[in-house]
Amino acid sequence: MAKVKTRDRILKTSLALFNQEGEAQVSTVEIAGVLDISPGNLYYHFKGKEAIIVALFAEFEEELRQVLSAPIQRPLQIDDNWVFVYIVFEEINDFRFFYYNLTGILERCPELRPRFARLLRLKEETANAILSSLEQEGYLTFAAGERDGLAARIAAHLTFWLQFEALRQGDRGARDVINDGVYAIMMQIAPYFTDGKTAFAELLRDYFASQSR
Amino acid sequence: MAKVKTRDRILKTSLALFNQEGEAQVSTVEIAGVLDISPGNLYYHFKGKEAIIVALFAEFEEELRQVLSAPIQRPLQIDDNWVFVYIVFEEINDFRFFYYNLTGILERCPELRPRFARLLRLKEETANAILSSLEQEGYLTFAAGERDGLAARIAAHLTFWLQFEALRQGDRGARDVINDGVYAIMMQIAPYFTDGKTAFAELLRDYFASQSR
Repeated sequence: MAKVKTRDRILKTSLALFNQEGEAQVSTVEIAGVLDISPGNLYYHFKGKEAIIVALFAEFEEELRQVLSAPIQRPLQIDDNWVFVYIVFEEINDFRFFYYNLTGILERCPELRPRFARLLRLKEETANAILSSLEQEGYLTFAAGERDGLAARIAAHLTFWLQFEALRQGDRGARDVINDGVYAIMMQIAPYFTDGKTAFAELLRDYFASQSR
Repeated sequence: MAKVKTRDRILKTSLALFNQEGEAQVSTVEIAGVLDISPGNLYYHFKGKEAIIVALFAEFEEELRQVLSAPIQRPLQIDDNWVFVYIVFEEINDFRFFYYNLTGILERCPELRPRFARLLRLKEETANAILSSLEQEGYLTFAAGERDGLAARIAAHLTFWLQFEALRQGDRGARDVINDGVYAIMMQIAPYFTDGKTAFAELLRDYFASQSR
């Protein structure tokens, strides 16, 4: 019982430190220090930082899988899509340290590479399923190849937006960054609206401008 | 004279090794070994791997600046734009090791961070200038906010496409990856065509399908 709790505390604290300081800056000794446990006790639960990263990835994978699978199993109503993109982004933001240093982490934990690739495919499939159902309902119109291309770009956008914003602007708050990320996705979908695309684009701009003040 | 040549050889070999193996996998001892010079001789020219990275960045910065500034100074004709995107992508591909491990490199060479952010802004400004001139000539039509959003997404796409493809598919050839990257940018512009957007989307799909076989 106590053992399980220590393991969970280690994961929770590691996640917070990795997200705040960047995973590369945080050592297991530091994690143990923050938790006020001995490095030996930490080692009893995790045989090094990579083991912590892999365990955190498993949590992230499980949560993101649940979120992403929902609309494939049961198509969303049109108004739900916007909220859905927020939920996906917030999930990614909760485990953002992976996304800031993907290459470095995948080099040190190569067993995560195929699992990360599968998550990427799931993002793309989910985007494609949502766009496809909106197309079938007549809301969106695509020329040949456009739907697949848009789904791939949305998956890439979800993967790299946080890093892009960090490179571009530095220290904006998470809420503004997520808002802009959702806005950028909705803007990419707007031109494919069958009717009223200009009105929708303007609605988006006004909505997100009011969000970020 | 001989000194300059050794310095250039070190940079050229380092770039090739970084691109092939990933920068984190390559040590200065290995670079010296490939060049058949002593580690001391290498140290005489560069006081560590970070100094090599900074020197390579300066080269990249200079080349990319020249490429990106051209269309701001003299607007492109409509047919030149496509070729221009290829040129930018190939420039990035030549120095791709930066893009595979941006976070890691910027953590170890923090003086590159503002310089990289400036390059990012220049990509965005160039995209915006090109889109703006196509809009003024009547080729493209944007609702409020759409042009700025598209320019930012193109800058992000140029920055992360190589990494996205590496995560997604692993070992495709550079030519196919660049082709798909250019296609993805042109597809993003297609929906904003004032006339003939479907015909343009289909032309793009046929052209890029024939390129990648």
